[in-house]
Amino acid sequence: MPDVNATERLQHLIDSVRPTDPAAEERAWSRLDSLTKPPRSLGRLEEVAAALARIQDTDRPTVDRKVIILMAGDHGVVAEGVSPYPQSVTLQMVANFASGGAAINQIAASVDAGLRLYDAGVAGDTSALKDVNQVKVVAGTANMRHGPALTTGQAVAALLAGAEAARSAVDDGITLLGTGEMGIGNTTAAAALTSAYTGAPVDHVVGPGTGLDSAGIAHKVTVVSDALACNITSDTDALEILAHVGGAEIAGLAGVMLGGAARGTCVLVDGFISGAAALAAVALCPGCRDYLLASHRSSEPGHGVQLEYLGMTPVLDLDLRLGEGTGAALAMALVDAACRMLSGMATFQEAGVSGAEIA
Amino acid sequence: MPDVNATERLQHLIDSVRPTDPAAEERAWSRLDSLTKPPRSLGRLEEVAAALARIQDTDRPTVDRKVIILMAGDHGVVAEGVSPYPQSVTLQMVANFASGGAAINQIAASVDAGLRLYDAGVAGDTSALKDVNQVKVVAGTANMRHGPALTTGQAVAALLAGAEAARSAVDDGITLLGTGEMGIGNTTAAAALTSAYTGAPVDHVVGPGTGLDSAGIAHKVTVVSDALACNITSDTDALEILAHVGGAEIAGLAGVMLGGAARGTCVLVDGFISGAAALAAVALCPGCRDYLLASHRSSEPGHGVQLEYLGMTPVLDLDLRLGEGTGAALAMALVDAACRMLSGMATFQEAGVSGAEIA
Repeated sequence: MPDVNATERLQHLIDSVRPTDPAAEERAWSRLDSLTKPPRSLGRLEEVAAALARIQDTDRPTVDRKVIILMAGDHGVVAEGVSPYPQSVTLQMVANFASGGAAINQIAASVDAGLRLYDAGVAGDTSALKDVNQVKVVAGTANMRHGPALTTGQAVAALLAGAEAARSAVDDGITLLGTGEMGIGNTTAAAALTSAYTGAPVDHVVGPGTGLDSAGIAHKVTVVSDALACNITSDTDALEILAHVGGAEIAGLAGVMLGGAARGTCVLVDGFISGAAALAAVALCPGCRDYLLASHRSSEPGHGVQLEYLGMTPVLDLDLRLGEGTGAALAMALVDAACRMLSGMATFQEAGVSGAEIA
Repeated sequence: MPDVNATERLQHLIDSVRPTDPAAEERAWSRLDSLTKPPRSLGRLEEVAAALARIQDTDRPTVDRKVIILMAGDHGVVAEGVSPYPQSVTLQMVANFASGGAAINQIAASVDAGLRLYDAGVAGDTSALKDVNQVKVVAGTANMRHGPALTTGQAVAALLAGAEAARSAVDDGITLLGTGEMGIGNTTAAAALTSAYTGAPVDHVVGPGTGLDSAGIAHKVTVVSDALACNITSDTDALEILAHVGGAEIAGLAGVMLGGAARGTCVLVDGFISGAAALAAVALCPGCRDYLLASHRSSEPGHGVQLEYLGMTPVLDLDLRLGEGTGAALAMALVDAACRMLSGMATFQEAGVSGAEIA
């Protein structure tokens, strides 16, 4: 059981997420339609700009300072042979993030975004690595095929750590957050969470992950089905679902979303694992949905189930399936462009440009 | 008729485009598959990186300095009522670009790209505007419904001016070019070019442009059909097609593509108007195709016809239909990310990360 204080802090966090104001979005659309371009000719970019206007409650949104919060954690379910990679790769990749050699390092730098690393539940010791924030709630989850992956207390601790990571970033002046993760086996946890939260059949949400073949996928379906049978009943609540078939890094990212929403800050959701965290965050706090934007459509099949359930349309579709926050980082460039367009363009009147004569 | 010297210069330009080397792309794929990520898990981003590696003939491509070359020109065919906006908007928008108030100013700045403005054929006088390069070959084209829009000499002059713009940018250290345009009426010219180069029926390539209703589109189909009947026969060659139903800014952008290709530099093709320029450039010089990347899928219906004909898959699909180079600028962020990923990531060996154990 989580301690009373932690449970109260989580409830306070959830209660502090305020609804966004549709009037701010209406004002943004009025301004968008007055700018020197044919109305709606920037398509999805205008929708992104309007969403940011609503989140920031202004028709001049800005996202000049951006950061990817990357949470890492291990999964006991890898003992079931659900990943082509050994568990040690999680620790090795955290070292790779810390030394700048991974995809997210390069991609975040390319969009001028910072990268903040958190060990939420890695099986190995990351404390000697440069700039890895230590918020470990467990040294790898338990094997969910045979019991809960996390205790409820561990899940709450990870949620609060994620919210604190978001709060700290916003306090440092960050105006756009993105989520990223690393954890061998975490597509298995994400599939279980997706089925549990949305009710989708297991075989609709299990995919190849880092590279399983069809036999490997069939086995993963069995493992996820067993985990759900073992851990989830119709009485299992949103927090218990996250604990029982989730993971420390996933709970941490759900906390980032709650914490970002509580501070009125947009959170760009990466791919399938981050999408599972979004399902948890929205189940715990429906109001946080308004603060989330989907960055890309992952090639992992369960991601489409998540997006449909959450009513999200991603801005990118690049057949990515890496995670780490790579899709969120790429989408940051588009969100930045959208905000600058809305905030910085001249109106027809300001620029002395004639409007349409015929329609 | 173009003067002999100009015709010779155009032929020299075309002859100076060298084929790209597939071996460079193979080396890039070898490196991509050795980097610390599951193979091909970055999807389209890896394909973009490999394309840049082939263009730059290195497995460490870079596009750190970027520019949008924006060409403006007017179209005599606006006399036929094919646009909701008056012709004067071309000049007004060039002034807006020069003073920083347009969408492309904000979006180019957001991706750290420069913007270079060229008057290739505006009906009004842009010479007093700040930083508008004067390469005007005509003060607005003739009405193509009743005769050639441009003389062949004017088209050649615009092509050479575009190539010179690209050469000048590359000489200044630019490593990624993007195309943009402004010209009231130019979706009509682009539709005529698309039908003439690809053989597609006129009603498959005519769309709403800046905002025609269905009656307006039907009228535009008639105008384009008349222009093709008046100007194009089975004997009309690639250069004559560009002159007869094109425009000065479109010929200029075809020149940018030839000039970029001749200098071994990638050119990001914006939307429907830039796509028509790409059809012209590839018709004049098939070898330049390798140097072109499609940035986005425009909502203008003829754009899909162009992409299919050219065998291009865009990186973005955002329902844009503005032009100005806005799609090309947005895609620059992804090309930059792709190159940094390929060039800057660590390999499994370098990072000491274990590879896959099972497949």
